[in-house]
Amino acid sequence: MRAVRRSLLIGVYGLSILLFLLFFWYYGLRGQNRDLEEGPVALAGDIQEVYVMVMFQSELDYWRGIMKGFEDAAMNLNVSVEFRGATQYDAHEEVVVLEQVIAKKPAGIAVTAINPEALNASIDKAVQEGIPIVLFDSGAPASKAYAFYGTDNYKAGTVAAREMARLLGGKGEVAVITQPTQLNHQERTEGFRDTIAREFPDIRVLEVADGKGEIMGSRDAAREILLKYPDVDGLFATQANGGVGIGMAVKELGLVGQKVIIGFDIDKGTLDLVKEGTINATLAQGTWNMGYWSLMGLFHLRHGLVETGEGGSNTGHPLPPFVDTGITIVTQQNVDQFYAK
Amino acid sequence: MRAVRRSLLIGVYGLSILLFLLFFWYYGLRGQNRDLEEGPVALAGDIQEVYVMVMFQSELDYWRGIMKGFEDAAMNLNVSVEFRGATQYDAHEEVVVLEQVIAKKPAGIAVTAINPEALNASIDKAVQEGIPIVLFDSGAPASKAYAFYGTDNYKAGTVAAREMARLLGGKGEVAVITQPTQLNHQERTEGFRDTIAREFPDIRVLEVADGKGEIMGSRDAAREILLKYPDVDGLFATQANGGVGIGMAVKELGLVGQKVIIGFDIDKGTLDLVKEGTINATLAQGTWNMGYWSLMGLFHLRHGLVETGEGGSNTGHPLPPFVDTGITIVTQQNVDQFYAK
Repeated sequence: MRAVRRSLLIGVYGLSILLFLLFFWYYGLRGQNRDLEEGPVALAGDIQEVYVMVMFQSELDYWRGIMKGFEDAAMNLNVSVEFRGATQYDAHEEVVVLEQVIAKKPAGIAVTAINPEALNASIDKAVQEGIPIVLFDSGAPASKAYAFYGTDNYKAGTVAAREMARLLGGKGEVAVITQPTQLNHQERTEGFRDTIAREFPDIRVLEVADGKGEIMGSRDAAREILLKYPDVDGLFATQANGGVGIGMAVKELGLVGQKVIIGFDIDKGTLDLVKEGTINATLAQGTWNMGYWSLMGLFHLRHGLVETGEGGSNTGHPLPPFVDTGITIVTQQNVDQFYAK
Repeated sequence: MRAVRRSLLIGVYGLSILLFLLFFWYYGLRGQNRDLEEGPVALAGDIQEVYVMVMFQSELDYWRGIMKGFEDAAMNLNVSVEFRGATQYDAHEEVVVLEQVIAKKPAGIAVTAINPEALNASIDKAVQEGIPIVLFDSGAPASKAYAFYGTDNYKAGTVAAREMARLLGGKGEVAVITQPTQLNHQERTEGFRDTIAREFPDIRVLEVADGKGEIMGSRDAAREILLKYPDVDGLFATQANGGVGIGMAVKELGLVGQKVIIGFDIDKGTLDLVKEGTINATLAQGTWNMGYWSLMGLFHLRHGLVETGEGGSNTGHPLPPFVDTGITIVTQQNVDQFYAK
């Protein structure tokens, strides 16, 4: 009787243990399936996984939206991010910072290139060592970086030209203040000029002047244009300091409200001039998009979630090589939502 | 004695059931934590969440890579996908299919536009009703769709021009066979012509001919060019049927290996001609990227994972408005990996 009872108990316990093991095994498998190396059912990394963003002039306000996007993507993906920057506008310093970051072998690096060439050797070496690298905001087209997340600057010039034409009623004389040594500014100027020439036969571009990327340089250039061509109807600055400089010049010459002014970017100086009505419009770049999708791209490279193998139509481009992060026109109507919180 | 044994058995069973329930509860909670509405630590949706891809000429091989990308993203995000297509090259039929899909209020829709205008009213209505819509492969720029995932066709023309110049040693006379009624083919032709004119002064574009998008039409156009200009050195087809048609013409005229031929796309007919050496190169579009990143964009819109609120630099563009999915040059060396499995 005892023997029967004992064997019965053992049977019951044995069955329970077997069922437990089955459940563990079942959930264990499901859990493993969530692991990215085995074929994920969710995009999730490890909090130990560190992605680094590398900048130049790291204290610029401009980067804040990009950093926020990078952080938001990290939160969604359960990974960590760090920010490293050269403090100066100095190519050598950025190379040194990037090399230090590469030496730590992070999960991935998003970098903005101070110029299109300086970082190429470091980027290419890191990519060859298997560290995923993407570019944001300022590209390095000849490097081996997998993708570039930034503004289509030629298209930004097109948007500026159409907004200028709208504000001028399709007719008038305009000038551009730019920074002719930098590729992104050349492209904005080209997009502006081409679009005016192609779409607005009654608008003429009188001059493209060098504002040297500075407020005072742009103020001087704008002043000279306003004095040389008293009938100029509109001014377009391809760069944030340019808009502020033009604003200064029209104020000094008592011309506020008499000229159409289009600026670039959404630094506080430019936004204030839009809000008070000195500048008619400025162009906001999709900075959050740059940061967010940079990390999304790096994560996909890191976890091998890209199609590169045989039968792969993307063999040459594991990630989309260019992501246009967009341009939004900011006017007095919507300016308030662009101030940093 | 029987009573004791029975109560003992009940106790063992009860304990087992309790432990089972505890485990269910524990794993159930872990599952819930992955739910995005509670603040995500992973990008994961619900398997009940259905995203739909809408195509035209749905039986075309060309869509297969795109569908694969869409499916792979769905697997990674734990959501479901469906495919709906007009079977014909018929704008009205695609509108009907799209309207049927919209009526079911899916989680999001990725659509390729048979022409840049036909679908705009349907797309705009759906977006206003809160259904996220993105475009892939063929865009509808004037619609309210949030983004376009596809080839930069002008750039594809540039890539073709540089490959042509490389194969010709920077010197010679060439012709283009295209489909002049379609925007993407106009852009490829323009990118090709502009790049030749800008970068290769010793190459001349003799003629741009209409292959009517058909194999026989392209064969006739190629034949005419080859007879009219016996010294023509290279031919570029902006479209898959064009490459196959040119291949047919050079074979008929006994000119295989004497002309440089660049095709487009990676249908079996074109790949076979590359493999045997009749066509020197063809251009593979990043089809997997189109499908994969379309779903990724829709998922982000659906779950509100985009920055659109106050202080948002992306106000005008919750998603990057254009994602260039890339072009890869396919030659005899790498052709094998492009055959569909």
